[in-house]
Amino acid sequence: MHDAISIITAKRDGRELSGAEIDWVIEAFTHGIVADEQMAALAMAVYFRGMTRAEVSRWTSAMVDSGSRMDFTWLDRPTVDKHSTGGVGDKITLPLAPLVAACGAAVPQLSGRGLGHTGGTLDKLEAVPGWRADLSRAEMAEILADPAVGAVVCAAGADLAPADRRLYALRDVTGTVESIPLIASSIMSKKIAEGTEALVLDVKVGAGAFMKDVADARELARTMVELGADEGVRTVALLTAMDAPLGRTAGNALEVREAVEVLAGGGPDDVVELTLALAREMLAAVGLDGVDPADRLRDGSAMDRWRSMIAAQGGDPAAPLPRARHTDVVLAEFDGVVDGIDAHGVGLAAWRLGAGRARAGESVQAAAGVELHVGLGDLVTVGTPLATLHTDTPEKFDYARRSLEPAFTGSAESARRARGVVIERIGPVER
Amino acid sequence: MHDAISIITAKRDGRELSGAEIDWVIEAFTHGIVADEQMAALAMAVYFRGMTRAEVSRWTSAMVDSGSRMDFTWLDRPTVDKHSTGGVGDKITLPLAPLVAACGAAVPQLSGRGLGHTGGTLDKLEAVPGWRADLSRAEMAEILADPAVGAVVCAAGADLAPADRRLYALRDVTGTVESIPLIASSIMSKKIAEGTEALVLDVKVGAGAFMKDVADARELARTMVELGADEGVRTVALLTAMDAPLGRTAGNALEVREAVEVLAGGGPDDVVELTLALAREMLAAVGLDGVDPADRLRDGSAMDRWRSMIAAQGGDPAAPLPRARHTDVVLAEFDGVVDGIDAHGVGLAAWRLGAGRARAGESVQAAAGVELHVGLGDLVTVGTPLATLHTDTPEKFDYARRSLEPAFTGSAESARRARGVVIERIGPVER
Repeated sequence: MHDAISIITAKRDGRELSGAEIDWVIEAFTHGIVADEQMAALAMAVYFRGMTRAEVSRWTSAMVDSGSRMDFTWLDRPTVDKHSTGGVGDKITLPLAPLVAACGAAVPQLSGRGLGHTGGTLDKLEAVPGWRADLSRAEMAEILADPAVGAVVCAAGADLAPADRRLYALRDVTGTVESIPLIASSIMSKKIAEGTEALVLDVKVGAGAFMKDVADARELARTMVELGADEGVRTVALLTAMDAPLGRTAGNALEVREAVEVLAGGGPDDVVELTLALAREMLAAVGLDGVDPADRLRDGSAMDRWRSMIAAQGGDPAAPLPRARHTDVVLAEFDGVVDGIDAHGVGLAAWRLGAGRARAGESVQAAAGVELHVGLGDLVTVGTPLATLHTDTPEKFDYARRSLEPAFTGSAESARRARGVVIERIGPVER
Repeated sequence: MHDAISIITAKRDGRELSGAEIDWVIEAFTHGIVADEQMAALAMAVYFRGMTRAEVSRWTSAMVDSGSRMDFTWLDRPTVDKHSTGGVGDKITLPLAPLVAACGAAVPQLSGRGLGHTGGTLDKLEAVPGWRADLSRAEMAEILADPAVGAVVCAAGADLAPADRRLYALRDVTGTVESIPLIASSIMSKKIAEGTEALVLDVKVGAGAFMKDVADARELARTMVELGADEGVRTVALLTAMDAPLGRTAGNALEVREAVEVLAGGGPDDVVELTLALAREMLAAVGLDGVDPADRLRDGSAMDRWRSMIAAQGGDPAAPLPRARHTDVVLAEFDGVVDGIDAHGVGLAAWRLGAGRARAGESVQAAAGVELHVGLGDLVTVGTPLATLHTDTPEKFDYARRSLEPAFTGSAESARRARGVVIERIGPVER
């Protein structure tokens, strides 16, 4: 017999929880036997005490076991997925999923919606006229199995890791989000339940990311790589820079446009670099090392996959993307070199313009967001256009400018060169 | 504008909460705006981070302000109260309240019921036929003002520190009871709301007490003494030993009988010593230093007050106390000197016999409990009666014996002498 109070006090006092205790508390929480206030206290105790590798591994598999686990082993191709911890302008999934599918893997990508200053992949794709995120399992399987598609980006069903869904909502209101074992087990329980064979993690580091410093990001990455190994999912993580926004756009339709540029063989260098780095890791993880994804960008086959992937989910890849009714340009107020573009400030501006939501369930503006005209190291003079704001609600321009204008910093003396996006690679590890 | 999440994360991250934040969170919690899961997370963060003197002081006054505050300044005598953190066999309030009233102070003693292995004062007095704990404020005031009574022991109304009532119920199920600032503010908010001018705290230390070591007990005592000073209540604390039970009885009617022995000028030495020590502190705190309470025990005036106090609340002080229908004797299984009587084991045995409750609201047996026949340092041989078990439910004898028998430890060599009850005195401090 287990009870919530002794499990809470054990963790509070620094004792390691047994596998049976973890199984019980997750199942009892899922069924409302462990009350929200008890789980909140336990989560705060975990925040302070952490979890051993054995604990977080069991915690993760208990969350997976709280719902159903998908299975794609019947496909004739290996499955591989990517997860990003979230950054401003992070549209990488959009070019990446069709690119990897074009290289011969199946990509079952379950994604979420945005909340706060980072956007959600589903919100971005919904800017494409007709595209829909909610698919049945049968539809998802059919698209993945289709040799001309093989990539799907859709919302996770309520039956995947329901314990995590409930726990995440609780952590969100109780100041217990920022715990590495709880973050790692939340991400990995969903990805493991999704049934992928291999997983590549994009762990963002920097001022615009959840993880501000490399040591924390490395610990999170290592924890997730180990959790993947424990569940038989080959997992690799890249730590990638999130100081300035990724690419030149933040906002749903604006980011789709940039993703299509990449698929067409163009696009900003950093977006291309990261897309190819993640694609190579995904392909290596499932034994498709022989394929060079850069070739698939050049030969147009990734773009073909994009079009069929969009069409498979009801979207019209040829339809014009929505454009904002109002735009406003931010001009440089200094002469010199742009040596900083604060991702958080840009993300907040896009959010204020209507690209994001303050509460779950709110709608977002497809066309709202920020388009950058300069990058790090660019020379500007007073009056050079730095960015264009896009929105359907122009009364928000002032509010958005207040976070965007201070995001640009300049220097008269030195030209700061943009560094590479990928900072470090972690994993895979053996079980 | 305050919000729960930023207050939780501030405390979690070790930042001091402002007075305005504390006022807001206590009031919002009282009205259900801060949810139970949020307060549970905050309580766990307080467990780990503690509170500064300013924080715990404001927290306490916010809990006082969540309800009404009683006022006895209109009485022609000073008011003084005692609070004990709870121990096995702790019947001190029973002789103490009439004794201090007999010395010229008014004693407005709000008490509670027992839960678990320590008994509650109200349960003990309810063993007296006819006595009732629930008084209106008018009845309470009338008894206190009566020159022949001047002492009242009754249940706290729901309007005294309702935030504490709600928070205590939450802490009880979330593993957040064992936090010194939360314990101190819980006790002191009720005592301050009760309107006493002075307060003497009996902080128990030892294996049978909540506080197992002197350092923790000292910190709790000092915190409460400071909280009293901050609210203008002159407060002193005694740290007292709770390794062996206090006196020779644990159980409701059994403890009343022992209290009456003390009021009659007899009773066990430790009960008399602690009653007089606390009475002297209470009298000194309200400037009645000139009165020797030992005289009031000797001259019978304390006993007279006991009788009038019982009668004022409907009890019959002359009625025989209930006796258990079944008794069973525990015999020594060793030759030697009794060098330990574990208070927790004795309390648990009394609880198992029916003297206590497992859940709030259950009834208790008035006559159930444990009567000790030996004290520390007594010489016994195999077969010497150590204790008598009393109950109306004799099927519980075996269960009770399993906790009582190991409570007695003996030694062949050395005669351990009983030490004094009072370990240390703390306070008062200036505001």
